[in-house]
This record gives sequence, structure tokens and C-alpha cells, in this order.
Amino acid sequence: MVATPNASPAIPLSLHPDRAFPAEKHTRAAAREIYRHIKDLPIISMHGHVPVEWFVDDTPFTDPASLLVTPDHYLMRMIVSQGKYHLGDLGVKSNDPDRPTEINPREIWRRFCESWPAFRGTPTRYWLEHELVDIFGVTERPSLASADRIYDHIQNVMNKKWFRPRELLDRFNIEVIGTTDPAWDSLTNHKKLAEQGWGDRVLPTFRPDVVMTLDNPTFAKDVLAMGEAAGVPITDYHSYLAAMRAQRIRFRDAGSRATDHGATFADTTPLPVETAEALFDRAMVGDSFTPEEVDAFTAHMLFQNAAMACEDGLVMQIHPGVLRSHHKNTLDTFGKDIGFDIPIAIEYTNALRPMLEAFGNNPNFRCIVFTIDEDVFTRELAPLAGVYPSMRVGAPWWFIDSPEGMRRFREAVTETAGFYNTSGFVDDTRAFCSIPARHDLARRIDAGYLGRLVAEHRLEMDEAIETGIDLTYRIPLESYAPRS
Amino acid sequence: MVATPNASPAIPLSLHPDRAFPAEKHTRAAAREIYRHIKDLPIISMHGHVPVEWFVDDTPFTDPASLLVTPDHYLMRMIVSQGKYHLGDLGVKSNDPDRPTEINPREIWRRFCESWPAFRGTPTRYWLEHELVDIFGVTERPSLASADRIYDHIQNVMNKKWFRPRELLDRFNIEVIGTTDPAWDSLTNHKKLAEQGWGDRVLPTFRPDVVMTLDNPTFAKDVLAMGEAAGVPITDYHSYLAAMRAQRIRFRDAGSRATDHGATFADTTPLPVETAEALFDRAMVGDSFTPEEVDAFTAHMLFQNAAMACEDGLVMQIHPGVLRSHHKNTLDTFGKDIGFDIPIAIEYTNALRPMLEAFGNNPNFRCIVFTIDEDVFTRELAPLAGVYPSMRVGAPWWFIDSPEGMRRFREAVTETAGFYNTSGFVDDTRAFCSIPARHDLARRIDAGYLGRLVAEHRLEMDEAIETGIDLTYRIPLESYAPRS
Amino acid sequence: MVATPNASPAIPLSLHPDRAFPAEKHTRAAAREIYRHIKDLPIISMHGHVPVEWFVDDTPFTDPASLLVTPDHYLMRMIVSQGKYHLGDLGVKSNDPDRPTEINPREIWRRFCESWPAFRGTPTRYWLEHELVDIFGVTERPSLASADRIYDHIQNVMNKKWFRPRELLDRFNIEVIGTTDPAWDSLTNHKKLAEQGWGDRVLPTFRPDVVMTLDNPTFAKDVLAMGEAAGVPITDYHSYLAAMRAQRIRFRDAGSRATDHGATFADTTPLPVETAEALFDRAMVGDSFTPEEVDAFTAHMLFQNAAMACEDGLVMQIHPGVLRSHHKNTLDTFGKDIGFDIPIAIEYTNALRPMLEAFGNNPNFRCIVFTIDEDVFTRELAPLAGVYPSMRVGAPWWFIDSPEGMRRFREAVTETAGFYNTSGFVDDTRAFCSIPARHDLARRIDAGYLGRLVAEHRLEMDEAIETGIDLTYRIPLESYAPRS
Repeated sequence: MVATPNASPAIPLSLHPDRAFPAEKHTRAAAREIYRHIKDLPIISMHGHVPVEWFVDDTPFTDPASLLVTPDHYLMRMIVSQGKYHLGDLGVKSNDPDRPTEINPREIWRRFCESWPAFRGTPTRYWLEHELVDIFGVTERPSLASADRIYDHIQNVMNKKWFRPRELLDRFNIEVIGTTDPAWDSLTNHKKLAEQGWGDRVLPTFRPDVVMTLDNPTFAKDVLAMGEAAGVPITDYHSYLAAMRAQRIRFRDAGSRATDHGATFADTTPLPVETAEALFDRAMVGDSFTPEEVDAFTAHMLFQNAAMACEDGLVMQIHPGVLRSHHKNTLDTFGKDIGFDIPIAIEYTNALRPMLEAFGNNPNFRCIVFTIDEDVFTRELAPLAGVYPSMRVGAPWWFIDSPEGMRRFREAVTETAGFYNTSGFVDDTRAFCSIPARHDLARRIDAGYLGRLVAEHRLEMDEAIETGIDLTYRIPLESYAPRS
Repeated sequence: MVATPNASPAIPLSLHPDRAFPAEKHTRAAAREIYRHIKDLPIISMHGHVPVEWFVDDTPFTDPASLLVTPDHYLMRMIVSQGKYHLGDLGVKSNDPDRPTEINPREIWRRFCESWPAFRGTPTRYWLEHELVDIFGVTERPSLASADRIYDHIQNVMNKKWFRPRELLDRFNIEVIGTTDPAWDSLTNHKKLAEQGWGDRVLPTFRPDVVMTLDNPTFAKDVLAMGEAAGVPITDYHSYLAAMRAQRIRFRDAGSRATDHGATFADTTPLPVETAEALFDRAMVGDSFTPEEVDAFTAHMLFQNAAMACEDGLVMQIHPGVLRSHHKNTLDTFGKDIGFDIPIAIEYTNALRPMLEAFGNNPNFRCIVFTIDEDVFTRELAPLAGVYPSMRVGAPWWFIDSPEGMRRFREAVTETAGFYNTSGFVDDTRAFCSIPARHDLARRIDAGYLGRLVAEHRLEMDEAIETGIDLTYRIPLESYAPRS
Repeated sequence: MVATPNASPAIPLSLHPDRAFPAEKHTRAAAREIYRHIKDLPIISMHGHVPVEWFVDDTPFTDPASLLVTPDHYLMRMIVSQGKYHLGDLGVKSNDPDRPTEINPREIWRRFCESWPAFRGTPTRYWLEHELVDIFGVTERPSLASADRIYDHIQNVMNKKWFRPRELLDRFNIEVIGTTDPAWDSLTNHKKLAEQGWGDRVLPTFRPDVVMTLDNPTFAKDVLAMGEAAGVPITDYHSYLAAMRAQRIRFRDAGSRATDHGATFADTTPLPVETAEALFDRAMVGDSFTPEEVDAFTAHMLFQNAAMACEDGLVMQIHPGVLRSHHKNTLDTFGKDIGFDIPIAIEYTNALRPMLEAFGNNPNFRCIVFTIDEDVFTRELAPLAGVYPSMRVGAPWWFIDSPEGMRRFREAVTETAGFYNTSGFVDDTRAFCSIPARHDLARRIDAGYLGRLVAEHRLEMDEAIETGIDLTYRIPLESYAPRS
């Protein structure tokens, strides 16, 4: 599949106006009509992983590879899977002195373009096409032959004065964007943004995983840092809870609307206070733990965070079900979050029960529960969200944030939970330039599903349009609205 | 979404003749042709939860809320999930003296109509539209603005002389309907019906869950009542089995064709007789049990019931996989069966093995196995039913008794089990007026699936029509035919 | 459904050129165009269960029943499930002296034809139609009425001189076919084939299940036979490993490209060498084992085989997740592999981790992982294959080797793993005459899925055609290419 560089003629690249709509005539007509009402609505991006620094410093980006390739673990993993290149060849820094990391961004870009056929049928391909055409005006298909031309073209756009994070927020039509910030964060960056008048547009999110995971190697350090940031010195389990409570309120006061929890499992069973105290004390002196102890403490702290949420009104996002860093050697060499995280089966009905029994009907509580395990859509998440007023089913996440995944999500969840017990789209991405593409795709899939309901005479057009607008704009805002 | 009452003009409500058919032209044409042959076939409703009293007394219904809203846990749960109303606001009786239960049916009806948008995309919405238009002749869309007009319109129809349970059986074209009756039932009502000539049309179903569940708080009382009803005084485990055997035969002689089993799990492992005896004896004196003991005894009794089924020929329905009353506070306040039952993952291959090894090839045995957990469709249920002559896969149940759920069921089960190892449609509902709507929807989905097979040249039209007729009429009758 | 023999007129049977394509106009047009490019490509059948003897001896087949009915467990199980006939009535040899086995092939054929309606909507029906029309030129639909005519027609074709295994390889356009051969095989047949110039066309596959399963009743015998075949006398665990290594190389030298592993679970955790030694020693003296010991030793040996694969380059096929011989009485009476094997839920993320951590990034290693449990498509297999260079997701297997199953496979796996981390089609069948039908159906489903991507503007037509050709021809060859 490797073409001779410079030899082949350019193959055109463009975006079809009907892309990702169902092909069937009446369904497509209905989808178009619904999409027409929602395509230009502002983007509500309540949860993602774009670094807050980008907005504080508003620094220009350097090159196509570091903007589009290296930070995107979806890209990394697919290229690595093809066997020709390893992570270092794609610019990921390695701890291995014998394994040089490629530092030439043009060379990295070439490797990505050469791998273009491997992305056929994937959402990554879909998003990238959208970005290349819509943001950068690229007009030819990526390949080894076209790589340099496209690289230069993108670089040229990136060199323009307006190509900066804040300006892009406007150009991308992003009304509000949430970042993700560790529990010990001083919030200095978010305060600076607030002073500059950007406090309503870039919001922090409280992510306390590191201070809830007993086998985190820097647990004690992170806990103490949280206490320092919160102004509550941590000397024991009780001051730890007090500091967390205070830090959550600092986040809320800095504009945060949500917390984010990436536990391995969804368990929310509280422990007896003495047990929790003892585990905490051992962790602060660097003791080691069984996996069961680690999971039990995390479950306990999820319950505690739910209790705190009823006080401070922060929306609780739960993202369980991923075995992180599946390949230890890759973790040791290249670090975390570079594509070797693999989902596992996950249970919610029993796991969430302690939390929902305690707070599920509390009007101050809101939890949004995400999954990569589609098996629970009809079986567990839709039935739970379809009765508990506090709970919403999160948008399909990670590997299933994709055309087929989103379609299956609507087909599976809607019949039991309706549209109004779902979260609205959440992009959850580190790839800043993919945000418009991701939201656009989600709108197209929702328009397609609503269009099918219209074409099958299961919903009237006026209702479908209203629902489309709600899913795109009103529901995500309301899902993440402060509760008290 | 709340409109000003009385202000908005009426939005029309009607039923499209092609509703719930696939939109694609050739598929829809084939579906129409198949549906034309099955739409007027009599309804075979072999298993449901309509109270037998309604037919014995043939009493008129009182008002729209108590007919259509309060008894339907699908409606309850969706309205509750929206956070504005709790169960008491919808007429569910509460044990909480501080929490008044709404008793004005018109007010309950308004709350339901106000919540109409929350039902978009759900089967409840689909069924209700069908009922409102087809049974009551309603011509405008429910909303807070139209609530009173619709209420009056329905009440007017309900006041007509013919709007009574027995007459509705005719108007609904229901040839036969099964009720569900506890193991200790005296069958007085069914006997009365038989004396009145209705014995072939309204059939009892033997449901022994309460006398097979050791932690049922009224276990001993229920067991003794079964003995009394059966005329077999129960003094120990052996007379308990004898009474159950006798009571099953009383049910069969009263027209029953099936038993119904709602265990948490599907396990059918028999216990050593001494173990079963000891557990039974402890339960009769009010001892408490571990969850494992409870499940083990239920599994044992499922096996015993299968053995009895080989003698008396009653068809065994197994409905596992639901964690009942997920929210304890709601259970304590409002009781059971009001929307807080949540499915769990469930295993069948190993669980059913003891029963199928013992009786699976026995020509006198028939079991119909239901699931809410779609994961087992291709993996476990279709392979089992596709080889054991005794077993059929039950129609998609509860949360997946829905357009998408039924479509996925046919797509998943047919390829391994065919059409002729499935049960035919089972409505399993408490909502009497929804029965025609539910059967009509099932016929439409089957017609759509068969139509797709025709349009994709995987089945000839004459075969599709015959299969449609079989699924609608012949197969449910034959699935529940007495076996000996 | 039973027609009067000889009375009914013949109902025509034919193959529609668009069969199994999506009905939607633009999708079907795209599918046709893609299919046009792939339909005549040679069949690559890298893994199946056709007996090697057929090719060595090139013996003619005897009759329609023993060619098409009795060896096909898909047919057996469906007919048995209908309750009228048991396995003996269909020609399966029984150990039960009181239960005569039908030996008249015409009578068996009649029973199969009578059961034709039970196959509606199944892949078996689809394959058989293809075989009847395309291989035998049958022109009427099977039924009890037409059974004898069709029987005579097929027998007539079978009597032709060219109707022999080797000639059929040409007529079926099979470029290469893999057989499955036990670990102790002498490879005499494959050597004969090689001497006759057929060595590149009919390849052995090394299947060591029997010598890795401690509770195999003939474990010691099979192990010793493997040593003898390999020329490495086995006296202990270490010579057992050495013999296996040597035998794998003998297979490779005889043309084998792969090994095949049918363990119950996917676990690949290695044991301490002393533990493995002790278990092996006990097995060689006929000791009995707990299920946990059996599974642990198998997991250990999967790991060992992966290590050997890195040396000899044989591709490792893993097929877990089936509970064999679910009904013991049927096993005792009729033996194995006659339709009573039932899938179970299966976990891969943790199970494959030891193997993938050790060898997953090794360029000499290739594993192809199959499943019948669709739940793992998006959750586990696609994420794993979408990052590990060594791993590919196997084609949907057994019960899900079907139109809907293959469609769901592409919809679920492609978005995370792409097309190029899948194995290409693997027929895995014992039914020789079904091979062209199975490959043709797979090509149609792939063309339909690719056609949908084109119709939804998610892929360009030139890319879809190239991908179709790759999936059909290049990818299966490359997936099974020797790695060192």
C-alpha cells in the first residue's frame, strides 16, 4: 500500500454535506432537516483534557505533528498496531537510552500519512478528515506522497496570527470548555483566566483519583499537596476529608461544575470509619496494599464524594472500567496514556447501589455515569437513569465515541431512559482541534437517529427538532448545572 | 417545555399506518404485505399480570389515571426520573404520613401529560399513542395544555356501558389471556369464571416464587396456605413437595398451561435431599439465611418444578435476572413493583445445565427462558434453544420489549435458533389497555424483520408470510400447549 | 408444515444476484460495485476441519446425506431441536443398542428436507441454498414432497467423475486450504500430498489441545504419541516441551502456518516450572485433577506455545469460550461434536495479558484471537488488536459466522481496530461443500458494510474496493504468513 513518494497525483479530499447520515432516502431527508437546526449551535464542552495552560498563555502551536499526532493516543495506538513504527518513532519520549525518539516533526507526520489506510472505517479518520478540510483547508488525501505538501500547508495555517488557543475557541464556536485538574491543583491558572475575563468560558474540573488510590506511588505527597492547596493541613483521615471538602468548594468557587472519577470499578460501598482511617494512615506512611484494599478504599471515597456533592452541588462524573497500562514494558519505557489502556467488563447495578440508596433521590445530587462496556446500556445504565432523578447516562466514551457506537447508544438507551436522562455529548478529548469534528459527528448521529424515528413514524418532526436542540445545547448545560 | 395551560392550540395526534416499519422502500413494502396477513389475527396472551378479579366481577373502570397511569410502572419510573414528581404525586400509596398521596385523578393525569416529552423514543410513548387514538379516539397530543380535554374525552369513553373488562376482551380481539396467581391461590375466581363459561379464555398461571424463596418474610404462612389450598397439610419438606405437586395439578385442571418463576438467578442445581429438608425446616420456624442459602434452595426448587413439569405437562417459564427494589427507602415507603427493579448480568449455560441434562430431551418437558440481559441472546439462549427440543427462547422481556429490543432479538436469536425455537410474543403486562398496542407493535417488528429478509433475498415472500402467521398465532399456542 | 409427499408442485429455488446485500438503494449499488471486484478472487481457507484423507485418497463421496447432512453439526442441532427426530434418526452412530441408527441415506435426506422450514433465517439455510443451486444445480425448494427428486438429482451429480475432492478444490477456486491435525500426527498424509505436488495447497495445522488438557482420558497416550512422532522420547516435563517444540517444527516444515488452540478459557498465565512439572508428572500416571488445575495447566501451555511461536514463527490461533458436550447423556450415546456445545462468557483483557506482556510486541509473534462472545468485540478484542502489533481479531466464529453476526462484527470491531487488524475470513468448517458458500457470504457482508461506509460518505469508493480486495485475499494470506 506504500506509494512512491512524489509520484502519485493528488487524490482529492473533501467533506460531503451528508456524511454520517443514514443513506435511506426518508431518513436522510429527516436527518438533514434536524441537523439544519442544530449544526450551528454553540459547542458545550463540559469535560475534556485540553491543558489549561494553553488558554492562560495563549501560546501558538509549533508544528503539525505536535498539534495533531503525538498527543492523540487514538492515532498512536493504530499506527503502533501496524507493526512498522513504535511509539518513539512517533515522537513519544522514551526512558530507553538505546531507543532514540524521533524529534523531526515532519518525519513523524510522514509516518502518520503513510499509515492513513489503517484508519479506514475509524472515527479517528472521520475526525481528521474534518480537521484537515475544515480547519486547515487541506484538499488532498494523506499518503506518503502527499505528506510533505500537507505538512507545509498546515504549518502555513498554524503560522497565522489568529491560530491561537483563545481565538480558536471563537472559531470553533465553543461557548464553554471544561479542563481536568488534579485534586491538589492550586487553581492559579484558572484564577488568572478569571482575572482576564475568561473564567466563565474555561472551567476547572476536580479530579481526585490520585488522592483516592492507595497504591498511587505519590499518594502521601499528593494528599499533602491537596491539603496545602485547600489551606487545610492534613494530619489524619478526618483532616483529609475536610481538606477534600474545602478543595472541592475552592474548585466550585473557581467555576467548576463537576468532579471526575476514573476508578477501575464502579463500586461505591462505604467502609466503617475505622477501616477507612486505618487504610489512610497506612497509605500515608507508604505501606503496600492488596488490590482488594485499593478498590475498597476507592469505593469508600466515591461514596464520600457523593456525600460531599450533596453539599456543594458539584456534578459527579464516574468513568470506570479501564485497565490502565496493559503492557508493563511500554509503561516503563514510554509512560501512561499512550494507547495501552484496555477496557474490562464492569458491573453497575450492585456497585452503584450504596450511593444511589443514600443519595439517588436527593435533589442536590447529580451523577453522570459513563461506560465503555456497551453490555450495560440496556441492562443496567438505562434502567438506573430511567428511574433515579439524580442519575444520567454519560455519552458513549472513548472507544465507543464513534458513529456506530453513538448509534448503538441511542438505540439501546433511549427506549428505557429516554433522551432526557442522558448527559448530552461529552468530548473528553486531549486533541483540541478534534473538538468541533467530534461535536459535529455527534450531532449528525443524533440527527440520524431522530430522523429514523421520524421516518418510522415513531416521532413527529417538531418533536425531533426540539429534541435535537435539547441534546446539543440545553441538556449538556442542564446536566452539568450546579445543583445547590 | 411547560406550556401555558389553555393557551396553545391542539397539536394533532394520529397513528400512521406504516409506523414502526423500516423506512427503506423494498423492506417497507415487504413488511406491509406480511403485516397485512397477521394484523387481524386473534391475540394470544399466554402470560400477563392483569388481575383475574377484573374478569370475574366485570366491574367498570373508574378514571383515566387509575386505568392508564398509576398501575403502569413504566410510566411511573420515567416521570419520577425527571425529578419534579415523586411516586406519591402520581397516586402511589405511601407509608409515610408526612408525604401525602395525590388522590385527585385529574391532577395525576395532568402530571402525566406534562411529562409527555420525556417519553419520546420509548415504547411507552408508542403504546400510549396507540391506546389514546385506537381505544379512546383521542385526536390531540398530550401536554399540560391538553390534559383536561383529553381526560374528559377518555372519561367519557370509559363511562360507556361496553367499556368493561369482558367486552374489551372481544374488542381487543383477545382469544385467550393468562393471569398470574400465587402458589397458595384457592382458584375460586378462576372456578367462577369457568362456571360462567369463561374458563377457556382466562387461564390461571401457577407462580410459586413466594414458597421457594427462603427469605420471604411470610414463607411459612404462604407454604401452609398452599397446603390448605391443595388439600395436602404440610408438616415437612416431603409434604411440601406433595402439596406443590397437588396444587400444580389443581391449576392444570383449572385450565393453567404454565408455571412462572421469577428467581434472581437461573441456577437449577438440585441439593441433596437432607440439605433441602434442613433448609425448609429452618424456614418454617422463621430462621434467617445467607443469600447463598436462599439462592441454593430456589435453584433446587426450580429443578423440582422441572421434574414435576415432566409429570403434569405444565410449561415452565423462567424469568431471572432482576434485582428487585433497588432503593430500599422507596420500597419501605411505596412498596414493591413501582419501577425500582434493575436488571443484573445473568448466566444460563452452566445454570440451566442440571435441569437440561435431566429433562432437556424429555418430550413431556417444555421450558421457555426469558432474559432482560441481551448479552446472552447469541451466546447462550439461542445455542441452547437451538438444540434442546424442550427449550424455547422467550420473547424479549420488560425493558427490551420495545421496537429496537425486539429487532435486536430477531437479529441475534434467529440465526442460531431459527424462528421456531422462540416462544411467540408474550406481553407480560399489568396494563390491560396496552395489550393490543403491544401485540400490534410486536407484529410490526416481526413483519419488518421478515420484510428485511425478503428484501435482502434471504427468504421468499410466501415463507415470510407463513412465518409471520406462525409467530403471531400458531407458535405462542404451541409453545404453551400442555405437554402430557 | 408437513406437506403430502408427491402432491405439491415444485416450488422454484434460485439464488438472487443481490442476496445478503443491504436493501437500501445507494448502499446496494456500492456493495454491488465492491463485490464485483472480489467475487472471483481465489478462496484462502487457512483454517478448517476437512479431513486430509479426502485429498490424499481423492475418493469419491457416496451419497447426499453423508456428504451434506450427517457431518454438519449445524444441521443436526436444528433438526434435533424440533423434537421429531433424534441424532440416530439422522445417521449419527449411537452407543445405545436399543436405539437403532438410521442407515438409509435417502431416509436421512427426507428428514432433513422435511425440516427445511426450521432453517428459515439461519446461515445454514443460506449456505445450503447456495450449495444446492450452485454446486448441484437443484431448482426446487426442499420439502418432504421434493426430497426424493432432489436426492436423485444430487446423487447424479455426485456420481460424475469430476466430483472428487481435488477436482472440487479447483472448481471451488480454493487456492489454499488448511486442515486441522492432532499434535501427535505423523503427518504421513501431508507428506504424501507433498510428494504428489499438493503440499502448497493443503496445509496441516498443529492442534495440541489433547496434550495440554490434563483431564483428557488419553493424555499420557497422546503425549507419548507426540514424542514418538517428533522423534523425541518423552520422559518428563522437559522432554515433553522439547517434543512439542520439535513437533511444531515438523509441522512448519510440512507447510503448516499455524497452530490452533481450543481451550475453555483465554487465560495465558504461566506457572512456576515446578508446579507445571508436578502437574505433568501426575497426569502421566493417570491422576485426577480439579477443574482449576486443568485450566491452570492449559493456560501455562498457551503461554509456552506463544514462546515457541516466537521461535518457529507459527501463527497462534486461540478459540476459547465453549462448554463442550453440554448434555452428558448425549455425549455418552452419540459422542462429541454433534451440536451440544454451548458458548459461555469469556474474558480476554486480563486473560491474554501475560502472553501479550511477554510477546505482544515481538515481531516474530502473531496471534489471532477468536470469540463467540460478541460482548468482547468493542470492549476487549478490538482495543487489544488495535494496539498490539502481534494480535489480530479472528473472523466471527461458529454461531456468529452468519450474516447478522458478520455485520455486527464489522460494525463493532472496525471503529477501534480498523480493517487491517482483523484476520480475514476463516471458514472453520467440516462441511467441504459449504466452503464456497461461506466465503461468498462473507464477501457479500463485507461488501455491504463497505458499501454502507461509501453511501454514508465515510469512505471513498476506491478505498472501499481496495479494502474489499485486501479483506478477501491479501489480509488472510498475510495474517497467516510465517513470521520468521
